[in-house]
Amino acid sequence: MRPLVASVGDPAGVGPQLLAQAFCDRAAQGLPPFAIVGSAQLMRGVAAHHGLAVDIAPIASLSDMDAAGDAMPVLDLGAIPYRPGHPDRDGASLALAALGEAARLAVTGEASALITGPIAKAALQDVGFAHPGQTEFVAEACGVPAEDAVMMLAGPSLRVVPLTVHVPLSEVPGRLSAALIEKRIAIAAAALTRDFGIAAPRIAVAGLNPHAGENGRMGDEEARIIAPAIAALRDAGMAITGPHPGDAMFHAAARAGYDLAACMYHDQALIPLKVLDFDAGVNVTLGLPIVRTSPDHGTAFGIAGTDAAHAGPTIAAIRMAHECALRRLAA
Amino acid sequence: MRPLVASVGDPAGVGPQLLAQAFCDRAAQGLPPFAIVGSAQLMRGVAAHHGLAVDIAPIASLSDMDAAGDAMPVLDLGAIPYRPGHPDRDGASLALAALGEAARLAVTGEASALITGPIAKAALQDVGFAHPGQTEFVAEACGVPAEDAVMMLAGPSLRVVPLTVHVPLSEVPGRLSAALIEKRIAIAAAALTRDFGIAAPRIAVAGLNPHAGENGRMGDEEARIIAPAIAALRDAGMAITGPHPGDAMFHAAARAGYDLAACMYHDQALIPLKVLDFDAGVNVTLGLPIVRTSPDHGTAFGIAGTDAAHAGPTIAAIRMAHECALRRLAA
Repeated sequence: MRPLVASVGDPAGVGPQLLAQAFCDRAAQGLPPFAIVGSAQLMRGVAAHHGLAVDIAPIASLSDMDAAGDAMPVLDLGAIPYRPGHPDRDGASLALAALGEAARLAVTGEASALITGPIAKAALQDVGFAHPGQTEFVAEACGVPAEDAVMMLAGPSLRVVPLTVHVPLSEVPGRLSAALIEKRIAIAAAALTRDFGIAAPRIAVAGLNPHAGENGRMGDEEARIIAPAIAALRDAGMAITGPHPGDAMFHAAARAGYDLAACMYHDQALIPLKVLDFDAGVNVTLGLPIVRTSPDHGTAFGIAGTDAAHAGPTIAAIRMAHECALRRLAA
Repeated sequence: MRPLVASVGDPAGVGPQLLAQAFCDRAAQGLPPFAIVGSAQLMRGVAAHHGLAVDIAPIASLSDMDAAGDAMPVLDLGAIPYRPGHPDRDGASLALAALGEAARLAVTGEASALITGPIAKAALQDVGFAHPGQTEFVAEACGVPAEDAVMMLAGPSLRVVPLTVHVPLSEVPGRLSAALIEKRIAIAAAALTRDFGIAAPRIAVAGLNPHAGENGRMGDEEARIIAPAIAALRDAGMAITGPHPGDAMFHAAARAGYDLAACMYHDQALIPLKVLDFDAGVNVTLGLPIVRTSPDHGTAFGIAGTDAAHAGPTIAAIRMAHECALRRLAA
């Protein structure tokens, strides 16, 4: 199996230190070989700052990984000092270059999966990043329309797909359509089979309104948009239920009844995921020709450089990418 | 201390059986004396159906409670058979009468607190109930404008107030105003002090949009409405923070930082509460001259009459009402 690649994320955020921790823990955690796309100087700074006993091996190509031995293989895109908590333009440029190169390696098949470290969107936009987020960037690198790339958040307790993502709440009702719901759920279900080995995924769909509208007393989107989409997917053979009241879907007994919760908007999906799996949440992009995951947190500039950041989500993201890539290889 | 009263809720729902279970467990659970407002025939049917070894003592007034001895005191408003899972018009009429009488007893001070059992709103509306829910009914019985009665959900892990409640999601942004947020949070904070003994409540306020708007990139309600309300409350001396991203507020470390989460809409508040405290959630109405709680679940007609319903929320509602009433007595 070819190695995985991880883009380093913003050099001033928690991304570099968490990747370094994951690398040092790779044997205990059973992680596959992976290379970090970023800066050798940065990773040397990380190791020194955090007292990690690891050598850094700058490599020019993934074919040099074996030669790195026990050292951390870093595809070196430029010299950047480690200044945690102090984002700047050079760091943003490196983060963008690392994302682009890591995505390229996954798209060409030189890497078997892509893990992306956390970026600061606003800072990246200042250096030319023209996408709403990394998911859309990666989709374009794959030649897939952004609307066909479906974000799933997955933890040990729960998998959720927010059917709308980074839009103001006031725009959510207008963005929802039966076509969008059907398409995104279909993409998600296919990916659960292909990448997660679930032969017939059971999907639970949330309503939009309180109590899923309570038979139209509090909103009509359930009857007008959501229920017809569910009916169409069920007619197509999917094991799908809903619309369920959002607040009645996420306790343990309810979760036992489905493999994926499809939610109408960001917080409806992310709140339960982060309540249950805060230290192990993985963001997976479904519907791409490549495997792409990322830890489900941001740059956390405020705690970068301290020991407060938790490597759990990064380790989980690498492990999940590996498992998905293995399933694709075996298919 | 005067006894508490509990309205029985819909006779065909889980309310009667859960109140009966709570009554039978009252010694082990340390519950105070309480009377059930409903139907003696109904409660006899519940005891027989569920095999509860308890006598039923119909009483005409709370002053007869002592004479009931070990029997379950029931303020008898009419003969109703126990037919779990089969709601009908007579049952809805009894539920409405019981709610009215129980509220009256609390308002007059004959009862020290009110617990309301779950009703089916649509069925009650068919027999003349003209309120959106029991909270508004109870507020009117107290002579308090419905908008000054604030719903809080409380469990062992979390307390939340949804600042808008039973409105379609599309109407939430338009309903929010700095005045509404300030008023409802002020009512909630005062009640946390008066009824829950928290001298200086710490309040965390959620944003409306994903990532709390991410500095205006996804919605402007945070800057336009929520932040000014928070600033005004802080200027008035309140320990208040936010607007916080909804999905970053509810993990254990975040929860340790506040006594109450103020949320912008129903599911933002109810999802985390029910993930964390599904079997112990209590609905408390803040800002009333009386103490009123209810178990945080509905009639659950589908499992009424079986052993699947859990008395935890009912027991928690009775206990919380008792504790709040004791604090008011001591004040």
